[in-house]
Amino acid sequence: MFAEEFENLRRARPIVHCITNYVTATDCANALLACGASPVMADDPCEAEEVTQRCGALCINIGTLSQSRLDAMLRSGTAANRLSIPVVLDPVGAGMSQMRKSALSSLMAEVKFAAIRGNLSEIKVVASGTGGSRGVDTDDAQSGAHPSADAAAMVKKLSASTESVIAVTGASDIVSDKNKTYVIGNGVPEMSRVTGAGCMLSSLVAAFCAANHGHWLEASAAAVSMFGLCGELARARELASGGGAGLFHVYLLDELSLMTVEKLEEGAKVEII
Amino acid sequence: MFAEEFENLRRARPIVHCITNYVTATDCANALLACGASPVMADDPCEAEEVTQRCGALCINIGTLSQSRLDAMLRSGTAANRLSIPVVLDPVGAGMSQMRKSALSSLMAEVKFAAIRGNLSEIKVVASGTGGSRGVDTDDAQSGAHPSADAAAMVKKLSASTESVIAVTGASDIVSDKNKTYVIGNGVPEMSRVTGAGCMLSSLVAAFCAANHGHWLEASAAAVSMFGLCGELARARELASGGGAGLFHVYLLDELSLMTVEKLEEGAKVEII
Amino acid sequence: MFAEEFENLRRARPIVHCITNYVTATDCANALLACGASPVMADDPCEAEEVTQRCGALCINIGTLSQSRLDAMLRSGTAANRLSIPVVLDPVGAGMSQMRKSALSSLMAEVKFAAIRGNLSEIKVVASGTGGSRGVDTDDAQSGAHPSADAAAMVKKLSASTESVIAVTGASDIVSDKNKTYVIGNGVPEMSRVTGAGCMLSSLVAAFCAANHGHWLEASAAAVSMFGLCGELARARELASGGGAGLFHVYLLDELSLMTVEKLEEGAKVEII
Repeated sequence: MFAEEFENLRRARPIVHCITNYVTATDCANALLACGASPVMADDPCEAEEVTQRCGALCINIGTLSQSRLDAMLRSGTAANRLSIPVVLDPVGAGMSQMRKSALSSLMAEVKFAAIRGNLSEIKVVASGTGGSRGVDTDDAQSGAHPSADAAAMVKKLSASTESVIAVTGASDIVSDKNKTYVIGNGVPEMSRVTGAGCMLSSLVAAFCAANHGHWLEASAAAVSMFGLCGELARARELASGGGAGLFHVYLLDELSLMTVEKLEEGAKVEII
Repeated sequence: MFAEEFENLRRARPIVHCITNYVTATDCANALLACGASPVMADDPCEAEEVTQRCGALCINIGTLSQSRLDAMLRSGTAANRLSIPVVLDPVGAGMSQMRKSALSSLMAEVKFAAIRGNLSEIKVVASGTGGSRGVDTDDAQSGAHPSADAAAMVKKLSASTESVIAVTGASDIVSDKNKTYVIGNGVPEMSRVTGAGCMLSSLVAAFCAANHGHWLEASAAAVSMFGLCGELARARELASGGGAGLFHVYLLDELSLMTVEKLEEGAKVEII
Repeated sequence: MFAEEFENLRRARPIVHCITNYVTATDCANALLACGASPVMADDPCEAEEVTQRCGALCINIGTLSQSRLDAMLRSGTAANRLSIPVVLDPVGAGMSQMRKSALSSLMAEVKFAAIRGNLSEIKVVASGTGGSRGVDTDDAQSGAHPSADAAAMVKKLSASTESVIAVTGASDIVSDKNKTYVIGNGVPEMSRVTGAGCMLSSLVAAFCAANHGHWLEASAAAVSMFGLCGELARARELASGGGAGLFHVYLLDELSLMTVEKLEEGAKVEII
């Protein structure tokens, strides 16, 4: 599972332009480098569009939003659409403020996304323009092992209306387009104990999309499964070493750089519903 | 000592809004997550106030200051005061420029702080509007094991005039309100070799205040003691592993996530003067 | 080799003002602290110049550029020149956009740099105002073990015309003024797998310049050699531990803090051409 998508990523070594928040920018850059891609961060409206044109994908993340950064996102996003460069959206803390909701409305209206990745509450805000939000790093997506039928139906419907792949990450993950839904069981709860796990994953979705053009569903699912697997491997090493949240974070980046197609094929926990 | 404050933190899992500098934002977010709290970073004046209202505490840090960020601080700070949400101030590099001194004057005039945490030179600037500053990560607070009587008296006086708990961290730490002063012996000099140790601590003070409403003195002292203890434990592991500043930083976050009420009760080095 | 420059750094413990991008600011601060210097980050035009005046060196890095940050760079740079405070330039992603090229033109016209450090494509943009750029973390400088004669000649010529030391880092590094050229063989390819390795090095060049006033060539070469040696030591530990990109990053900071004059003298791989 996902062998082809992974090998394409390692071969293509795409450059990914991230317009992102300053809290997790370093981790996003390191995650991209660890998996063989290259990051470029540029968020001034004067250069963002030009930078996007040199890249294989664009990742838009609305954490620590500002008007200037939103302008850059809109310019880069429409330029990417014009040039068929895939754009990924991470609606961080979507329900946190009117400003973020309004920014999301603009982004959804003006930019077409290859994929949108968030936790359930963030994706609900994208879907409905409503909903609150706990801390941005809180993963309140699902409590059980399986996503509810309601969540899966909502995701599929949102995918149909937006023509984007929707990836909801939580206790188990849903990655869906309007026709097909992957339920992915990789990952560990400890990932939500590290800031930027979601942001890193969104960057990786963009990298996989760049390297697997047009195959947004498989690309997104591959990223979600691979990153979750890295979390599992990192958690095992953390426990073996007697470490805590600091070492887990380090090991997570380690495992991204140590991932192989064999490990991925063996470790992917994927169901199609 | 501090068992109750610590257990309240772990139980409450508060959301802490940080308006902070981009150099240490990631570390502040990870420190909050490691101790069971949740971070939210938002610094645009258009959303800051709304975000604050959803949180259990607000932490204002004047590193990499800008006019826009100061506006956000003032709006969020006054909103938090109105709603009885505790606000913590970290006057990073307070004496570095007229801009920071002037920002401090505005903040002190318009916002009431539950606690103010800095090194001695920063707190002196808050107290007097004077004084220079070495590098922001330099801890020039005290050279001996005990704070001078002068420092303790200055802190108590500042606490009385501001009605805030004042926490001065250095070789030993002073945490005081107008009535009572804790002298805390936890911590190791190596903490000043990692950027953001002070900023992380201020975030933790905010988290403890959120979880121990109204008990600002005990909450602040608990944060200072616990973080210092994490530093001691991290330093012991660094030495045992033959590592350096990089591993110390990782272990510091580890120890925050591995802290227990038993360790804290055993390790706290606190004196009341 | 470089014993004197290194000992001067450890003795002087200079404060370095960085006007830099938010992706690698934390790593730059930690690199400076690890080698015994102190970082100050301040990028608002209202305070930048005043902050620079309190420091031993200024490091200007054009990643995540904005108009406001460029204003701060120009003010701080000219103030530093007036006060004989060395200024180091890192032209990150120089060819990425017209905005960066235009910013570079302004900086080169208005500020005199003690040293300019970049990869070959970035330095070529500085030299010619032309050239593209791959991802900012991509090190496309040289493929062989030795820099080409063309590259060395270009660097020497650029140094003569700018009156700055030019440091080009890649598979092997060139550090040159108009008279003398060091070719430095320290470093490992894995350094380009960590974001901010180049930015950290530029900060270290600034620290060495602060501690070795007027000796810009030796100071820059010492920083390049020392940092490359730290990379070698970190890579050896990474391999021994079975780790990956995450641990390498941690060990890199470790080795900066564990460096000694003996290790540097033994490990420096330097040739003068």
